Amino acid sequence: MNIKADKKDAKRATILREGLDIMRCRGYNATGVKDITDAAGIPKGSFYNYFESKEEFAVEALRMYHNEYAAPYSDVLRDQSLDPLERIRRFVTMRIDAVIHQMCYREGCFVNTLCQEMADSSEAIAAAVNESIHDLNSALADCLKAAQDEKAISQEHNIGELAEFIDNSWRGVITTAKARRTPQPLEGFRKYLFSRILV
Amino acid sequence: MNIKADKKDAKRATILREGLDIMRCRGYNATGVKDITDAAGIPKGSFYNYFESKEEFAVEALRMYHNEYAAPYSDVLRDQSLDPLERIRRFVTMRIDAVIHQMCYREGCFVNTLCQEMADSSEAIAAAVNESIHDLNSALADCLKAAQDEKAISQEHNIGELAEFIDNSWRGVITTAKARRTPQPLEGFRKYLFSRILV
Repeated sequence: MNIKADKKDAKRATILREGLDIMRCRGYNATGVKDITDAAGIPKGSFYNYFESKEEFAVEALRMYHNEYAAPYSDVLRDQSLDPLERIRRFVTMRIDAVIHQMCYREGCFVNTLCQEMADSSEAIAAAVNESIHDLNSALADCLKAAQDEKAISQEHNIGELAEFIDNSWRGVITTAKARRTPQPLEGFRKYLFSRILV
Repeated sequence: MNIKADKKDAKRATILREGLDIMRCRGYNATGVKDITDAAGIPKGSFYNYFESKEEFAVEALRMYHNEYAAPYSDVLRDQSLDPLERIRRFVTMRIDAVIHQMCYREGCFVNTLCQEMADSSEAIAAAVNESIHDLNSALADCLKAAQDEKAISQEHNIGELAEFIDNSWRGVITTAKARRTPQPLEGFRKYLFSRILV
């Protein structure tokens, strides 16, 4: 790779970073290409040197978001030094803490936001949303399977269904926490998860 | 009330109906006042004879949506001719059918959409979202309390928390069903609700 290509990649990453920060707060439709280029300090027209369209930008921004926010959760779920239920407990605590402290309830989840706004009208965004959901769910499913193998949860659980239900449920819980700006829905989720579901 | 006021009310209702149909598909930010007035067949400027702002419009549109979509669910939950768990079963089936057949997975939930986009920036919309969530949750809580009184579910459930958890979980499930365009997340929700939670 030559220096010019490296520079282009670095600039592309800056645009993604700045644009992601705007789009995750405002949503897809309310974020114009000009908002993104203004934030990145480049002329509007040059956006298209880096991305084919706002849609392509959103797909790449979602991947960046996924790598930064979801990857650390996968790491916890795959930490073999802890027993599987403890990994899930830490995973849930990390996610709850992130909503309360890092996001201050304000941001919701970028995966959710894109899904709500765009999954219906953009196949590419729907695919990226599904890819992100699938990646974390498969780490969770592996951990649940380990818990089942250790007889820490019932043998009756279908692991794939269980992982999906937990993730789906979580998505709704953070939406409500955002609307109410209280941790109560998050705590309710934790309580039902460990007292009723993961038994 | 005079004829002029009646006519104004009727026109306001038409604008709400037409605008709601657009806003629930496109979202709040992507729906301009002009989109609403074009759909209702009135000049853009006259919008403000009926609504102070797009925000006020959205609050009223959410109330209309709530009355049309959520009220029938409350009715099922309050049907004293059925035992409480059967009411909840029908309520869940109605909601699943609505997502699959009426909405063809396409619309998501207008309450969710407004919450995601606007709960953070508009106090009025956040309040209307909470009012809508609260109304259905209280009907569900009454029904769960009746089930507990009949010993159809465990005495250990805290009814308020349980109703909230079910509703929160549902919100996430429909988001995923929308992304995937399959009924699987909805069926998973039903399965876990009746096999694990409502016992």
